[in-house]
Amino acid sequence: MSRKIAGLIGGGVIGGGWAARFLQAGWDVRVFDPDPQAERKIGEVLENARRSAPGLSDVALPEEGTLSFHATIAEAVAGADWIQESVPERLDLKLKVYAEVQAACDAGAVIGSSTSGFKPSELQDGAARPGQIVVAHPFNPVYLLPLVEVVGTEANDGELIARAQEMLRGTGMYPLHVRKEIDAHIADRLLEAVWRECLWLVTDGIATSEEIDDAIRFGFGLRWAQMGIFDTYRIAGGEAGMKYFMEQFGPALKWPWTKLMDVPEFTEELVELIAGQSDAQSGHMSIREMEQIRDDNLVAMIRALKDRNWGAGKLMNERDAAIMASDGTVRHAEQLGDAPGPIVTGRRAVPVDWLDYNGHMTEARYLHAFADATTRLMEIVGCDQDYIAQKGSFFTAETHIRHLGEALLGQRIEIRTQVLLGEGKKLHLWHEMFEGERLLATGEHFLVHVDMATRKPAPFGEQIAGHIARIAASHAGLLRPEGAGRAIGAPR
Amino acid sequence: MSRKIAGLIGGGVIGGGWAARFLQAGWDVRVFDPDPQAERKIGEVLENARRSAPGLSDVALPEEGTLSFHATIAEAVAGADWIQESVPERLDLKLKVYAEVQAACDAGAVIGSSTSGFKPSELQDGAARPGQIVVAHPFNPVYLLPLVEVVGTEANDGELIARAQEMLRGTGMYPLHVRKEIDAHIADRLLEAVWRECLWLVTDGIATSEEIDDAIRFGFGLRWAQMGIFDTYRIAGGEAGMKYFMEQFGPALKWPWTKLMDVPEFTEELVELIAGQSDAQSGHMSIREMEQIRDDNLVAMIRALKDRNWGAGKLMNERDAAIMASDGTVRHAEQLGDAPGPIVTGRRAVPVDWLDYNGHMTEARYLHAFADATTRLMEIVGCDQDYIAQKGSFFTAETHIRHLGEALLGQRIEIRTQVLLGEGKKLHLWHEMFEGERLLATGEHFLVHVDMATRKPAPFGEQIAGHIARIAASHAGLLRPEGAGRAIGAPR
Repeated sequence: MSRKIAGLIGGGVIGGGWAARFLQAGWDVRVFDPDPQAERKIGEVLENARRSAPGLSDVALPEEGTLSFHATIAEAVAGADWIQESVPERLDLKLKVYAEVQAACDAGAVIGSSTSGFKPSELQDGAARPGQIVVAHPFNPVYLLPLVEVVGTEANDGELIARAQEMLRGTGMYPLHVRKEIDAHIADRLLEAVWRECLWLVTDGIATSEEIDDAIRFGFGLRWAQMGIFDTYRIAGGEAGMKYFMEQFGPALKWPWTKLMDVPEFTEELVELIAGQSDAQSGHMSIREMEQIRDDNLVAMIRALKDRNWGAGKLMNERDAAIMASDGTVRHAEQLGDAPGPIVTGRRAVPVDWLDYNGHMTEARYLHAFADATTRLMEIVGCDQDYIAQKGSFFTAETHIRHLGEALLGQRIEIRTQVLLGEGKKLHLWHEMFEGERLLATGEHFLVHVDMATRKPAPFGEQIAGHIARIAASHAGLLRPEGAGRAIGAPR
Repeated sequence: MSRKIAGLIGGGVIGGGWAARFLQAGWDVRVFDPDPQAERKIGEVLENARRSAPGLSDVALPEEGTLSFHATIAEAVAGADWIQESVPERLDLKLKVYAEVQAACDAGAVIGSSTSGFKPSELQDGAARPGQIVVAHPFNPVYLLPLVEVVGTEANDGELIARAQEMLRGTGMYPLHVRKEIDAHIADRLLEAVWRECLWLVTDGIATSEEIDDAIRFGFGLRWAQMGIFDTYRIAGGEAGMKYFMEQFGPALKWPWTKLMDVPEFTEELVELIAGQSDAQSGHMSIREMEQIRDDNLVAMIRALKDRNWGAGKLMNERDAAIMASDGTVRHAEQLGDAPGPIVTGRRAVPVDWLDYNGHMTEARYLHAFADATTRLMEIVGCDQDYIAQKGSFFTAETHIRHLGEALLGQRIEIRTQVLLGEGKKLHLWHEMFEGERLLATGEHFLVHVDMATRKPAPFGEQIAGHIARIAASHAGLLRPEGAGRAIGAPR
């Protein structure tokens, strides 16, 4: 099967993003850009894209197409299925590019423009084949964000628009067909409205850039990432619905809540129009359902940011640390006393992102909880972030989990840990997971201490060896757990 | 230790959200609301909060405080550390409430108002102790979104503002102290600017509510959830920085990109002011670092939405399905042929959210990949979502993982699966994980088929039994894997 071909005119951050989109969808990509730095610049974008974008999929992406650079527009676009123009925002330049492109490209190819501000009728003006040119406006980073605004005019027939959308969908994008052309399309109008208001807030000394960013990313930004503005307000209206929300907040349109006071007239017709569209969009769900979907989305996204220790997730990590500092959680071996018994190495609720299609905690999250418990035990014996950065860490070599009971959303679980062996470079752990006094699972784990420079097995550092030895000695006096050392399917 | 006490005046969606915030931080909450439905309404919000909010933490939250309802404002606020007013947006009503509150509350308590639009000076006007009253404006859902805007006047001394922020932080919130009072504070000005622009887009027939929501949640909404607007534009400026970005897009302020044309004058001073603030905010990171942080955040958030099958995540799931439909991935037993060997049950890249502090794929994600492989095998033998909904599923009883090699970011892994036993209600699987031909891990799994009505073991349904038997019979001819049936630490 021959590969599809994309001809890209202009290779900056946006052109490079398009190159990544097409290459990672298995297209061949041919670039024309007179900038002598173009190859380096596209290479940098591609490096970012290769690092991040394949991870969006839970399947293997098709093999990347080939990337080539060309000395002329004609060479780059000959035989291409899709041509994307991403040159600077100067209309005369863009029109000149289209003339050269159309002299060399297939009449059936789509010519998309990355323009933020020009309307397609302006781009088509004077073209040999106006019907071939559309706006295809993407968002940075192009290789990750799915949105692309597709805007045409009456000169574009429906078949071309449909074909353009189909090709864009094939690259993993979401082609939003804009009904009427308008300056700045849709998304940039909203961005520009916010940007203008932000400039006022800074100019008037109300807030700094950082405070405004915090106001966005700790609040409505999280809502918008998953539902946008209308569905969010639909929920705010409660069971009374969108009409109620609009009537409640309609009067605010007359208040000086923005610097920007040229507002639409708040008529019954406007309310009906929007309430009707909102019903069409989400009327199949109750507000209660929407609230739970929203909440689950927010928890999952904030938890994703916790792993990155960023934004709202960083805040939550700081909160967890504050709770642990005040609730008696053991963090250091010194807190254990002289002859410690099994050590509590985790206490938490089962979050929504730990469930599976069977409605209970999914098996991998049992191991996640046990691995967190192992991390806590490491911290307790002194193998903390400083130790790991300077010296060594533990790698798990083997794990044996037995699932004895189900855990459901929100249930509080606790992990208790017994050290079966801790000497030289070996650490053999036994975790038990409880909900109340109900045993949910056991985890037997064999870990090896490694030198982080060589990533090879190495004896415990002396900072941690003493603590491990003391706990292991004390735990040697405990009963050996019933399931320790068992193989799968072995008789009891 | 005696618990802190919150007195809440008004218990709708916002008041209920505050109740959840305080209760889940271990405060006692006393509510006054004349609405006879208040208890039910707060109960519904609390139910949502209890379902979702504890999952935000990776530690156990403190025990919830107690919730009580009171017949008078005086009773609800007596002895309270924090009083929160969330009554309808009518100034006369709010002032009447403060008079009653101040007649009964401690002089040292903080009185916060949930007002969206009123300025604190308006709320303090005529109060017995104006210095006790501040705006504390939260965002719905209050129990999940951290942002709360704290706005005071010169009547509030710094100690009170600091104490207010400290208490709010204790509930897991992010108190943003707004420097100057202004109508609608900060976030609602941005929301209102977008809302007004959205009303124009709908009124003018450019887009429907759903199209606008899609333009937000498939594009800039994802950016804003983690970085806000200024840091996003800082990155867009590239290494040339914020000043370059502003100069590039400054002229657009004069273009008709919004209906809202009352823009700040674009002076050198404005550019310097914003570029300086942006440097202070993020100048410690290179643009390259910021790009990678942004990309990792986006991938992690979109992957979180994939698990919820929502928004940008739903798109990515659809894309995965399209790739699998075209790349020869086996989905049904019929595709296997008569005497299948080990079955490829997964192929994917290692995504950023699967790494740990040791810089490699974390142990729980090995099990995640094996569990996905098990799910694929179930699908292949006919235990798909329809079967699970109608009849039965498989629960994993035991797992034994051996880690033989490290997997790094972006590496492509493949899982191959051998059925060791499949009869009655038992399924015994052997997964091997490869990167190229390098064996990274083995997973031995013992699963039990269950009746989803009783959640007890039950024989395979006949739709799947035949497929399992045929694969098991064919795999009986394969070599038994070296590690199968071994216990941890057992000699080879």
